[in-house]
Amino acid sequence: MEKIKDFNIRKGMRTEEIVGQMGSAGFQAERLARGVEIIREMRKEKAVVFLTFTANMVASGLRSLFARMCEKRMVDVIITTGGGIEHDFIRSFKPYLLGDFSLDDRVLRKKGMNRIGNIIVPNDRYVLLERKMQKLFKRIHRERKVTSPSELAREMGKLTKDRGSFLYWAERNRIPVFSPGITDSAIGLQTYFFKQDHPDFGIDVTGDMKDLANIVLNAGKTGGIILGGGISKHHAIGANIVREGMDYAVYVTTSQPWDGSLSGARTNEAVSWGKINKRANHITIDGDATIVFPLLISEFL
Amino acid sequence: MEKIKDFNIRKGMRTEEIVGQMGSAGFQAERLARGVEIIREMRKEKAVVFLTFTANMVASGLRSLFARMCEKRMVDVIITTGGGIEHDFIRSFKPYLLGDFSLDDRVLRKKGMNRIGNIIVPNDRYVLLERKMQKLFKRIHRERKVTSPSELAREMGKLTKDRGSFLYWAERNRIPVFSPGITDSAIGLQTYFFKQDHPDFGIDVTGDMKDLANIVLNAGKTGGIILGGGISKHHAIGANIVREGMDYAVYVTTSQPWDGSLSGARTNEAVSWGKINKRANHITIDGDATIVFPLLISEFL
Amino acid sequence: MEKIKDFNIRKGMRTEEIVGQMGSAGFQAERLARGVEIIREMRKEKAVVFLTFTANMVASGLRSLFARMCEKRMVDVIITTGGGIEHDFIRSFKPYLLGDFSLDDRVLRKKGMNRIGNIIVPNDRYVLLERKMQKLFKRIHRERKVTSPSELAREMGKLTKDRGSFLYWAERNRIPVFSPGITDSAIGLQTYFFKQDHPDFGIDVTGDMKDLANIVLNAGKTGGIILGGGISKHHAIGANIVREGMDYAVYVTTSQPWDGSLSGARTNEAVSWGKINKRANHITIDGDATIVFPLLISEFL
Amino acid sequence: MEKIKDFNIRKGMRTEEIVGQMGSAGFQAERLARGVEIIREMRKEKAVVFLTFTANMVASGLRSLFARMCEKRMVDVIITTGGGIEHDFIRSFKPYLLGDFSLDDRVLRKKGMNRIGNIIVPNDRYVLLERKMQKLFKRIHRERKVTSPSELAREMGKLTKDRGSFLYWAERNRIPVFSPGITDSAIGLQTYFFKQDHPDFGIDVTGDMKDLANIVLNAGKTGGIILGGGISKHHAIGANIVREGMDYAVYVTTSQPWDGSLSGARTNEAVSWGKINKRANHITIDGDATIVFPLLISEFL
Repeated sequence: MEKIKDFNIRKGMRTEEIVGQMGSAGFQAERLARGVEIIREMRKEKAVVFLTFTANMVASGLRSLFARMCEKRMVDVIITTGGGIEHDFIRSFKPYLLGDFSLDDRVLRKKGMNRIGNIIVPNDRYVLLERKMQKLFKRIHRERKVTSPSELAREMGKLTKDRGSFLYWAERNRIPVFSPGITDSAIGLQTYFFKQDHPDFGIDVTGDMKDLANIVLNAGKTGGIILGGGISKHHAIGANIVREGMDYAVYVTTSQPWDGSLSGARTNEAVSWGKINKRANHITIDGDATIVFPLLISEFL
Repeated sequence: MEKIKDFNIRKGMRTEEIVGQMGSAGFQAERLARGVEIIREMRKEKAVVFLTFTANMVASGLRSLFARMCEKRMVDVIITTGGGIEHDFIRSFKPYLLGDFSLDDRVLRKKGMNRIGNIIVPNDRYVLLERKMQKLFKRIHRERKVTSPSELAREMGKLTKDRGSFLYWAERNRIPVFSPGITDSAIGLQTYFFKQDHPDFGIDVTGDMKDLANIVLNAGKTGGIILGGGISKHHAIGANIVREGMDYAVYVTTSQPWDGSLSGARTNEAVSWGKINKRANHITIDGDATIVFPLLISEFL
Repeated sequence: MEKIKDFNIRKGMRTEEIVGQMGSAGFQAERLARGVEIIREMRKEKAVVFLTFTANMVASGLRSLFARMCEKRMVDVIITTGGGIEHDFIRSFKPYLLGDFSLDDRVLRKKGMNRIGNIIVPNDRYVLLERKMQKLFKRIHRERKVTSPSELAREMGKLTKDRGSFLYWAERNRIPVFSPGITDSAIGLQTYFFKQDHPDFGIDVTGDMKDLANIVLNAGKTGGIILGGGISKHHAIGANIVREGMDYAVYVTTSQPWDGSLSGARTNEAVSWGKINKRANHITIDGDATIVFPLLISEFL
Repeated sequence: MEKIKDFNIRKGMRTEEIVGQMGSAGFQAERLARGVEIIREMRKEKAVVFLTFTANMVASGLRSLFARMCEKRMVDVIITTGGGIEHDFIRSFKPYLLGDFSLDDRVLRKKGMNRIGNIIVPNDRYVLLERKMQKLFKRIHRERKVTSPSELAREMGKLTKDRGSFLYWAERNRIPVFSPGITDSAIGLQTYFFKQDHPDFGIDVTGDMKDLANIVLNAGKTGGIILGGGISKHHAIGANIVREGMDYAVYVTTSQPWDGSLSGARTNEAVSWGKINKRANHITIDGDATIVFPLLISEFL
């Protein structure tokens, strides 16, 4: 057994150095450092990397890190929710604001301010989204009637010019963005409005299944960087069932395993399903991604 | 201010009586009792009731409570994940097993046992699902090529004869089951297999949007019983944005608000969005649904 | 492996019946039911039972359940914090009030209302405590200068006539109440005030160690019902190290193990220390005690 | 309202720069950055600083950061548990080891390995503690019969020569280490053994109350850096009640407020009690201290 070593931190130290020290510090620090090692290994082994995240993270400062990973082709597949796509797209045009967890939500409602934790989205952002989406749907409808979530994400990526947007870079670098539950979002609401006058418009979610399965089946090795839970997390590991599981997996979570939820499930539960390989190198890090993820990824940026 | 009253519990007491006492006990007990009151009010006011739950809950003993609520027409809309539909359907034919959170997942993998917390799903359950789904897809494909999640859930409900199944009762009592992210599940995997020989088969998720919106728009009042988080939770409250929010809402959650996640967001955050009405009666109860929900619902069964 | 069985709940059902059904329902419901079985076994085997709880629980409706367990001699040792003793004592004379988690604490401060979650303690309760404690300290100081936490708890028990008080019943039934950190409380603050004029007054905490160790060493079997974490939890299991650990243990907790904290540690961690015996029957239940504990204990009351 | 700004991270960046960016990133990142600002203000205003932590943190790599803060006189008072003192002392002589959260505790028991999360303490460390403590108690008993927790901590500090020990630096720099619940620890167990042959030996915990109160009463301003919960947290804020509360407070926690526990209580709850001043600058950061604290403190080291 290795020894626990005390931190030796001095002002001005590089982040990688502190993260390196975390490896001998115990508790979640040790797990974070192990996460870095697993990502290093994914990269060395040229694994096909799945990055998943939840919508709220895209409303936060993490957004540009996802973009940067696409820019540098550090990821091969992105899976997120409709909200994840929606926030990235809106923020390409207008910023979100910093609020507080304890603001009065009835007052916010009156002011047209929507709250995501301590982040605020003013209503006019959704007016902007509506205008852009209706125009985009019109074009898509003209061209092919029915679209898929990944195609829609690609089209939205083409519309942005913001180099801090992951849609922008995913589109430029041909990284597919899957979003099996895309209609559950403001984008979905826009499809509902659009469909009222264009009943033959549709989003077929089964189309993306094939593309995703092909990526998994053709990969030498696969790895997952799974931030948060929900449908995005499950879709990434679930797809890997067709190849006896991911070879590398790093979860960052704030959920707990004791309720049997998928969101709280640790990496080892996925081993029983063959969603993560039984010989895989994997770790679960408990903590908020806005703190954990910058540390996890900084040495690769 | 009301006084804190000590519990006065004796052996053999009825559950409703203990739950009633919880109302003056403080902490989450008090919130649970308030949840019961809000559900009582929903029913009195004949609100259109949305029930949402996560897949793992359907693998647990809670499944029959969802079924019973459909049988008694206590709910008007169900929203769940693909996994929620899948577990209900499979358990109509074969039981799940009780395991332990700390079983060795590599050993389970070897034995063909899939773990959901302390619940075990043997592999043959998925063989059964495959057989039934492929047959069903064949028929649907013959009849109409493209289906929707709610239509698929209805067809699956027709195939079961288990009175403990919510799909069974939802189908009998014409309660729609929405599942915007349905392809993220074993059912989704089956659509992928089926599509290989039937490329024109599809699931259009935009179709259900209209039905859901119509229910919301035509309702006098609406209420939500929201168990767990994720896409099901958001879809229920998100749909209510078109009517300035739900009038009643009870959340049961194991997630925390401090990461800005939708799953951890309390009812008040939804007020800022107009997903829950600013005059609504609403409460968030922190705890595992397998303990909280039986207490919350017992007086109505 | 046992099968997962769905709940079969009808209005008016006795609590024990629902708790019994929880045993086949999975997740924390199953663990709660297992907790009931372990307590049943503790009682059958006539184990010396340690009950520990945190201060906030005594401010809640749970207080009378602790009292009832002392009245019925279901417990042999109580370990709690100074706050646990303080709240029980004050509530023997004046009630606490039901507030809300989201009250404005600056406004409360102005009104002289102290908040414990959603429970409110008006300032005059502490005026009452001051009067009673100073009088008691005066008598103790006259009689013996230095006291111990358990002696102080016993003297306070003599001063109450409230049958809902655990101090009352512990004193009547000679159940020792240990509180190794008693000075960290309003009682401790009172000792500070008293000591200003009576510098030779003191509380020797080492005295109680011997009494506690004797109980552990003379016990045939020992069992713990450990609600919440902190010093009370550790003191109960820590004392059992001198006999190779408790034979039965039920933890109820809201803390998580991933930070390496004692409060979040599951029962199995204590096995490595010999604080719980390696052959012990033990379980950890995740949830708020105000909901879990009434269910856990109702069949024994 | 300020805008949410995306991270702009490049390899090799200094930690302070990333922490600075966190201030505009939302969620807990923003709170961490706010914590840094509050500590900066504490220092600028020359507040008397209370640092509290739990025992497990001293078993981790954080120990040297506490030591470094004492070395640099960044703190004026330390409050911790008996376990916190015990781990610091033992580690001055022998290292702890890095294990895993999922090790088999029955196997560990057989091997004489005690587990704290993913940290392992072999039994011989406690043999060492016994030898040193018995010798120390003998000397103290000879000199004055009865001691106090802070005096004991000081004597232990004198025995170490490890510059990574906070006891070492606290003793050198006359920073008092309070530990109101000290007997709940292996040190407490040693007092029990010692007392068997020296019944007049004792630890009077009321003695330290006066010293602590004097520090609070004589302070211009006070600030708290409160890591984790339990008795140490409460003792620091509780002592500040005599001066209408702390002027600055930073909590780092893994506990939740919804159970009404002191450990989970946010800073604002303490405002209602006058333990934190109603005009104070205060923040609660949710996360594991082994990750959060190095970031919080690095610019001051």
